[in-house]
Amino acid sequence: MKVIIHQPSKFDETATIVDNLKNRKPVVINLETLILILARKIFDFCSGALYALDGQIQKSIKRYFYTCTK
Amino acid sequence: MKVIIHQPSKFDETATIVDNLKNRKPVVINLETLILILARKIFDFCSGALYALDGQIQKSIKRYFYTCTK
Repeated sequence: MKVIIHQPSKFDETATIVDNLKNRKPVVINLETLILILARKIFDFCSGALYALDGQIQKSIKRYFYTCTK
Repeated sequence: MKVIIHQPSKFDETATIVDNLKNRKPVVINLETLILILARKIFDFCSGALYALDGQIQKSIKRYFYTCTK
C-alpha cells in the first residue's frame, strides 16, 4: 500500500492529512521543520482525528509520525 | 436530544469526549477553568476528531464550545 508523506508548513494543510486518513491511507507526517507550537497543534489535531477513526499514531524518528487507520 | 456537558480537568478525559462524538451525541465542552496550553491541546484534539467525523464545532461564550456530528 502506498504511504503518503506530508510535510505541512501551515495549519491549513492539516485538513488534507486528515482527508487521507479518512480515506484509510497510511500517512507519514513530518513536523521536523515546524516551530514547536505549530507542530504540537498539528499533532494534536491529527491525533484527535485518528482516535475518532480508530487509527494509530506512532513516533518514528524525531517529529516523524507514522499513522494508519483500520 | 440530550446534550452532554464536559468540563475536562486533564487531557486524558478528552477520549471520553470523543467517544461521545463517535456515538453522535451533541457535546458542550467547557474549557473555562483550564490553563491555556491545556485548553488548546484539548480543543485541537476535539477539532481533529470532529473534522474526521464530519462534525462541527461552534464557540458559544468564552471557552465554551458546542459540538455535534452528523
